[in-house]
Amino acid sequence: MSQKKRHALPVSELIAKKRDGGTLTDAELTGLIEGFMDGSVADYQMSALAMAVFFRGMSFDETVAMTLAMRDSGKVIDFSRLAAPKVDKHSTGGVGDKVSICLAPIVASCGVAVPMMSGRGLGHTGGTLDKLEAIPGFRVGLSAAEFRTQVRKIGCSLIGQTGDLAPADKRLYALRDVTGTVESIPLITSSILSKKLAEGVDALVLDVKVGRGAFMKTEGSARELARCLVRVGRLAGKRVSALLTDMSSPIGFTVGNALETAEALEVLHGEGPEDLQELTYALGAEMLRAAGTTKSKGEAERMLAQAVRNGSAARKMAEIVGAQGGDARVVDEPDRMKLARHRTTVTATGEGFVTEIDPLEVGYASMGLGAGRTRAEDAVDPGAGIRLHVRLGDHVRAGDALATLYSSKKPLLAPAAQRTAASFVLAKRRRSSSGRIIETIRR
Amino acid sequence: MSQKKRHALPVSELIAKKRDGGTLTDAELTGLIEGFMDGSVADYQMSALAMAVFFRGMSFDETVAMTLAMRDSGKVIDFSRLAAPKVDKHSTGGVGDKVSICLAPIVASCGVAVPMMSGRGLGHTGGTLDKLEAIPGFRVGLSAAEFRTQVRKIGCSLIGQTGDLAPADKRLYALRDVTGTVESIPLITSSILSKKLAEGVDALVLDVKVGRGAFMKTEGSARELARCLVRVGRLAGKRVSALLTDMSSPIGFTVGNALETAEALEVLHGEGPEDLQELTYALGAEMLRAAGTTKSKGEAERMLAQAVRNGSAARKMAEIVGAQGGDARVVDEPDRMKLARHRTTVTATGEGFVTEIDPLEVGYASMGLGAGRTRAEDAVDPGAGIRLHVRLGDHVRAGDALATLYSSKKPLLAPAAQRTAASFVLAKRRRSSSGRIIETIRR
Repeated sequence: MSQKKRHALPVSELIAKKRDGGTLTDAELTGLIEGFMDGSVADYQMSALAMAVFFRGMSFDETVAMTLAMRDSGKVIDFSRLAAPKVDKHSTGGVGDKVSICLAPIVASCGVAVPMMSGRGLGHTGGTLDKLEAIPGFRVGLSAAEFRTQVRKIGCSLIGQTGDLAPADKRLYALRDVTGTVESIPLITSSILSKKLAEGVDALVLDVKVGRGAFMKTEGSARELARCLVRVGRLAGKRVSALLTDMSSPIGFTVGNALETAEALEVLHGEGPEDLQELTYALGAEMLRAAGTTKSKGEAERMLAQAVRNGSAARKMAEIVGAQGGDARVVDEPDRMKLARHRTTVTATGEGFVTEIDPLEVGYASMGLGAGRTRAEDAVDPGAGIRLHVRLGDHVRAGDALATLYSSKKPLLAPAAQRTAASFVLAKRRRSSSGRIIETIRR
Repeated sequence: MSQKKRHALPVSELIAKKRDGGTLTDAELTGLIEGFMDGSVADYQMSALAMAVFFRGMSFDETVAMTLAMRDSGKVIDFSRLAAPKVDKHSTGGVGDKVSICLAPIVASCGVAVPMMSGRGLGHTGGTLDKLEAIPGFRVGLSAAEFRTQVRKIGCSLIGQTGDLAPADKRLYALRDVTGTVESIPLITSSILSKKLAEGVDALVLDVKVGRGAFMKTEGSARELARCLVRVGRLAGKRVSALLTDMSSPIGFTVGNALETAEALEVLHGEGPEDLQELTYALGAEMLRAAGTTKSKGEAERMLAQAVRNGSAARKMAEIVGAQGGDARVVDEPDRMKLARHRTTVTATGEGFVTEIDPLEVGYASMGLGAGRTRAEDAVDPGAGIRLHVRLGDHVRAGDALATLYSSKKPLLAPAAQRTAASFVLAKRRRSSSGRIIETIRR
């Protein structure tokens, strides 16, 4: 990077400044990200800086500067001609997290524009894009222009991130992934927010998951991340709030792509698992609040319920699916998404109350059935996955079915069944559960 | 790197292990260095690891493993057919440090083989190779075979490091230099020792300098480095000891290449500045001790003094210079090394005792005259430099000459004169000085 133009210090001294606990200026951070993109800041310098940030952290102001520099490394979608408030939701990722698929159409049918960009699954976590692609014909790869047009016309589009949004984040994330520098709250924050700010939204609701199935294993670290996201997002001029939600067991009864999409569609018909509904309504109410539709949580939830009851949420989903080339009949007839041919059932070997269903084990079992990916370039089997037959607190007897596993490749069933069986903990005493929503963080 | 063959964990997990305060095994560190050399460990991974090491440190065992892996990344010189004990000296670098030039021939004339590989100057510090090249015709770039033969024949050779010794260190150092990861004691230790172990010596005496003109500014950090070097060197099977020496003012009266070489040659004739003699005899005695020649410091110093008095040290130097293509008459007639044509004198503007001569300022002034380098690829002016006319404790009056500056380029004189003048501190009261040797560290 042209050192004279952008900042006084050479790159190695900027790294040393952060290493020694100093604070980088806006200009220095902008220069580093610009230099990273134009090649004058080498990958080996950026990874050393990321490691220094891992140890020293970044102030909120530094994180804002880095977020904005990464946002500005590519295109920023302009929705200014669209009058409706534009709100997106982002989840830090979990197991069985199909919330986006029901949440987006419900909120959109309440008059809020939802330009939603999601990701693919990797490792034990699934991805909304993979789930949506279980709908025959559904295209997640719209161009930015198609995306904008669809959001303007029907208030919602569900797509993958286009390559020209926040490319610096894409490159930096790939680098962090192989250099042991993923686990840094300011870096996670700027990664999430740079992409979301590039989407041109007015407000953002974050679902920060906590527990064994989440990236953040403890409530303390999840709360810290949520607070950083809210604070930095607000300093960047957006209405950002976060829900801390429990990820200590899979969400709903399904894990896998077609299975999860079908389950999410149930919510549009006023059905579906209790915890999935709880998450959808809580996040939806927060999105309506962020959109300025209403300040009352109760009113927001009534509006969402109304949209489900009167069928407008389901119709909105059919519109979205149709607009993106998918078979819209799926919304009412989810069986049109075929499940994988080979199946097996996992049964209880003893008696007791289900006190734990390890989401990490279930996630890896589902991946092992073909529903997920080990590497980003792997293909997924849309019909593979796991349907749980019990939830936390249920009482089971030896021989009761705990789960059915689906795969297109028969040999994958046995090891996944073993893993699934191991994910259940039965105990003599029932343990009480307190729901998915732990806390709402607005500042 | 082939992960299966070398270690169980992928590189990013090894980095994370160190990042989280873990200890890397011998096999893991060897695998990392081998992978770094064969390209399977990327530069951006190595720099992130170096930053993690900066924060977390390395145990002595880890440092030994890294040192040996870097030593083994290239050729290791085999002196096993040479019966004499082989001892080298290494200085962490200072201003006016010409000790090697007189030390090597004195020690060699006492029957110890001194296969000495030195470096070039960079920034405010000079380099032995640049100083030796002030001798007309002197070649520092011998092949490994020429080097071995000369050490065998005359007991000493003074050359630059050949590229095939510890190439992993060379690459890692270049990376650390641009990623803010130089200042790590275990990394400095493995860098120094990997090169020295590859020279095939039996023992090594380290001159760890401390003060404004040194890399280590405080006695505490210098002592820590010295202890780490000694401990790791001994764990690697060599007799290693260290002297902690004062670098808060330039050594001797000269800074610059021909100037310093001439001053070092004075020591071979029993003359030269007191502090330079002190350093030479202390380091020489430690080398004789390490070689097993004698355990008594007094006897060692008498042997060294005897070698100077009876002329064998000067004759040894003439042999070395002649063998390496240089004009051996320089040993007795140092004026054969021409000083630069343009000169200026810096005079005192007030009266008082000299209490400080800032070695950093003098070093940079000398570099500014053409005697040193800003970048590794710069050429040096052998005749440029600074001759001090006073030492710490001297009393001066306004108008007294403090220093004479030499340069081949007249416009370089004025700014260097300003810098040199600013390096002197005069005070009303004399401050006592306690010599150069602070401490000897043998374990």
